[in-house]
Amino acid sequence: MGTRPRPSSSRRAGAGAPGESEAYAGLLARAREAGLLASTGFLLAWDQEVAMPPAGAALRSEQAALLSALVHERRTAPDLGDALAACEADAELMAEGAAAANVRSLRREYDRAVLLPAPLVRETARAGALAVHHWRAAREVDDMTSFTPWLQRNVNLAREAAAALGAPPGGEPYDALLENHEPGMRAAEVDRLFGALRAGLVPLVGALREAAAPGTEWMGIRWPVEAQAAFNRAVAGRMGFDLDAGRLDVSTHPLCVGVGPGDTRLTARYDPARLLGALHGTMHEAGHGLYEQGLPKAERLGQPLARPASTGFHESQARLWENFVGRGRPFCAWMLGELQRRVGSPEVAALDVDAVYRGLNVVRPGPIRVESDEATYNLHVMLRFDLERALLRGDLSAADLAGAWNERMRADLGVTVSTAREGALQDIHWAMGSFGYFPTYTLGNLYAAQLWESLGRALPGMDADLARGEFGGVLNWLRAHVHAHGRRYSPPELCARATGGPLSHEPLLRYLDTKLRAVYRLDT
Amino acid sequence: MGTRPRPSSSRRAGAGAPGESEAYAGLLARAREAGLLASTGFLLAWDQEVAMPPAGAALRSEQAALLSALVHERRTAPDLGDALAACEADAELMAEGAAAANVRSLRREYDRAVLLPAPLVRETARAGALAVHHWRAAREVDDMTSFTPWLQRNVNLAREAAAALGAPPGGEPYDALLENHEPGMRAAEVDRLFGALRAGLVPLVGALREAAAPGTEWMGIRWPVEAQAAFNRAVAGRMGFDLDAGRLDVSTHPLCVGVGPGDTRLTARYDPARLLGALHGTMHEAGHGLYEQGLPKAERLGQPLARPASTGFHESQARLWENFVGRGRPFCAWMLGELQRRVGSPEVAALDVDAVYRGLNVVRPGPIRVESDEATYNLHVMLRFDLERALLRGDLSAADLAGAWNERMRADLGVTVSTAREGALQDIHWAMGSFGYFPTYTLGNLYAAQLWESLGRALPGMDADLARGEFGGVLNWLRAHVHAHGRRYSPPELCARATGGPLSHEPLLRYLDTKLRAVYRLDT
Repeated sequence: MGTRPRPSSSRRAGAGAPGESEAYAGLLARAREAGLLASTGFLLAWDQEVAMPPAGAALRSEQAALLSALVHERRTAPDLGDALAACEADAELMAEGAAAANVRSLRREYDRAVLLPAPLVRETARAGALAVHHWRAAREVDDMTSFTPWLQRNVNLAREAAAALGAPPGGEPYDALLENHEPGMRAAEVDRLFGALRAGLVPLVGALREAAAPGTEWMGIRWPVEAQAAFNRAVAGRMGFDLDAGRLDVSTHPLCVGVGPGDTRLTARYDPARLLGALHGTMHEAGHGLYEQGLPKAERLGQPLARPASTGFHESQARLWENFVGRGRPFCAWMLGELQRRVGSPEVAALDVDAVYRGLNVVRPGPIRVESDEATYNLHVMLRFDLERALLRGDLSAADLAGAWNERMRADLGVTVSTAREGALQDIHWAMGSFGYFPTYTLGNLYAAQLWESLGRALPGMDADLARGEFGGVLNWLRAHVHAHGRRYSPPELCARATGGPLSHEPLLRYLDTKLRAVYRLDT
Repeated sequence: MGTRPRPSSSRRAGAGAPGESEAYAGLLARAREAGLLASTGFLLAWDQEVAMPPAGAALRSEQAALLSALVHERRTAPDLGDALAACEADAELMAEGAAAANVRSLRREYDRAVLLPAPLVRETARAGALAVHHWRAAREVDDMTSFTPWLQRNVNLAREAAAALGAPPGGEPYDALLENHEPGMRAAEVDRLFGALRAGLVPLVGALREAAAPGTEWMGIRWPVEAQAAFNRAVAGRMGFDLDAGRLDVSTHPLCVGVGPGDTRLTARYDPARLLGALHGTMHEAGHGLYEQGLPKAERLGQPLARPASTGFHESQARLWENFVGRGRPFCAWMLGELQRRVGSPEVAALDVDAVYRGLNVVRPGPIRVESDEATYNLHVMLRFDLERALLRGDLSAADLAGAWNERMRADLGVTVSTAREGALQDIHWAMGSFGYFPTYTLGNLYAAQLWESLGRALPGMDADLARGEFGGVLNWLRAHVHAHGRRYSPPELCARATGGPLSHEPLLRYLDTKLRAVYRLDT
């Protein structure tokens, strides 16, 4: 903690513009304070999911709102603008890649933050914390109506924020919110990528629906929760997740919270009636956690260089470990050996790798996004993207959301939604006031597929390693090509540096097509 | 949440001093914001004990320091001084008891806070969080030496703070720190009370040492931790602790953290080899918790009226439930019935109330404060009071502390301390940078004894109620006479209102003398 940003920061620049490096040091000190406040907010959020008693909800919403306001205050302070200008005028400073990246990223953040009125920021945080509380209650009794006013309030606040931020040239209001999660991405570009993906996915899913699905009865083998938790802990540790610098708890919704340096917290949800019920969820969250632990936070807390490149890149790390590793044949081989050692039942002893691998990759359209397979998952995301875009344009009201949702589920996935809990109440995002987040799930899949192709080229022995439970090669490559850079490069730059090209729908389609046709034993 | 402070707050006062009630509303808004920040700090502290991974310590110390600095900033803002002056000039406002009490208490706080330099406040919080980390490590390996520099740094910072605050007229530097915990109390008065108590305690403990002690073998009956935890939870609930607005967890050191309205958290430490190993610790923390839940925090968050009267009064609530209720004969009668129902073993079935009651009240000098009995506990506290006074005067250095401690243990309690862990490393307080806190433990016992006598007069049927496990009468009396008032009255005023007189050593001596002579079957 507290390491100086760079050796040259004590240097004084001359001629008429003194103290630029002091300006940079000041900039980093401010970023660090905002980072400390943000990290405190992350802890509040973790606690809300894992520990907070029910009656603590009102207090929590006020604490969260106050912290948001304090972070916003620091990100919009007038002398922060002065410090930025002084840094930008310092040619020597701006010639250094790391410093320049920090300054540019803080500049973008500042220019956006000053457009948001402080009361709106505070009210958005407060409304979000309260709406989550009411969303939970509404889910409990499966009643969309009681949640509708809270949702509409969040939509209205998001519309206000989008209006205040303004659309980019040639863009739309939605873009202003998408920018929070995927810097530089535009709704039109998401549309293009999703359209191309959809054009390949729909026939693939159709073909699989006609074919005989592999058996999944073995998934219902019982295994006590404690033994599952010990296995999950072992897998996370083996992936490289440092449990002395993190936790793995139980919560209703699996999550990863990167509180700050030395403190990254995962949760999982267990079911003793499902042999691997929590494993892939844990690998997903551990994938997020590895990214958090791989960022240079201890030295650079609060700096853009210590923050993830984008929500999409964050998701790519989770999906890469969950699906590309965790649902791959080599991993299944290692995992089955471990299971047979740990469970010690004849049922598990009788399993073979092929059955496990095929069972883990069954494609079956269903109402719940987080329970869906690698292929149809993306159709869920596209639905949400279109609906939240309509909410933000004002073309759809919160009161009409459930109807639109259910209709689209029928059209896209052939699924009839019978309860709100299995429909529009299933996700927490809009309750939290998070709009423009959903597309990053599929963007994450696209990044993951593209990174996976690069990994395959870079590590010829990867499959053999994974089959032995050796994950260090994959992690080291991700550390070097993604984690270590933080926000140094924009998502398109990072994508190009790590994978050699721009983001495309092709690697994911190639991967799904090859894998799923083989799993279903279809001719390709 | 967010209730307006009082109906008249929109009133405007006339003639040359406009807006006093606005000033009062502003005062309360500031207090609320400081309260929200403080409540966030309380959550960080709870998390540090219960959940934080080891590698998170450095981040936590910075978060804690920043929050302390932000609270201090709010408590010393120049326009807070203006608002206070405007309120004080408003005769109508100051004629209202509740408002006047808030204003006077915030004035005292402000006048003290502005004397403390902000860097000292921040450094004290940071040093405390780090020292706790090193204290824990030193305890682990039982090595006082490695903790000495951290302790000396805390002592030096406390001396700086005492010097900045200044001693009260006729007082000493220690008083400036004691004021943080027991407003209005002075070291000289503590000396007087402790001296009188000691004069009665020492011969009593001597007489008991000569007598045959009741048997305690039954305490070693084994009971699984889960069953103990369920029982403790039931007892806390029966005492009136609202578990929907709180938690009961496991931690190395039992604690109570009143995070804020709707969120009060207790912990306990279990041992399956001790039948009641965690019960009295839980009753102690639940006593603290009932005080926290009884303060009008939801309406008055951050106001003095929603804060405990003093650390001594807080402790009195814990000790009253732990000892006066929990180690009393009526409670033992109810508890034994419950135990016999829950444990269902022949050993427990064979126990009789008299044996349980007498066993729970054995007096046995030992090295550890938190494990000591009701009588010798106070000798532990007196030792710490004298040693921390010497540390703060500069008459004792951290390097010489362990020697002085061990010598005094031999002289006062006839106990030979064989390890640092059982000696000067046993308590967390000095590691946290908390000086002037220890005397409040015995002050708490004195308040508790005095409240207990009043309770006995006010509730003639109390013993019969307690024997039936009916604790509502005791709680309601404490709610009305202590909890509801918050900091409205000074500790001496509150003591006089609740008990009819000033704090005295006599009720505690009377109680201990009567009870222990009966337990030991000595002639009185």
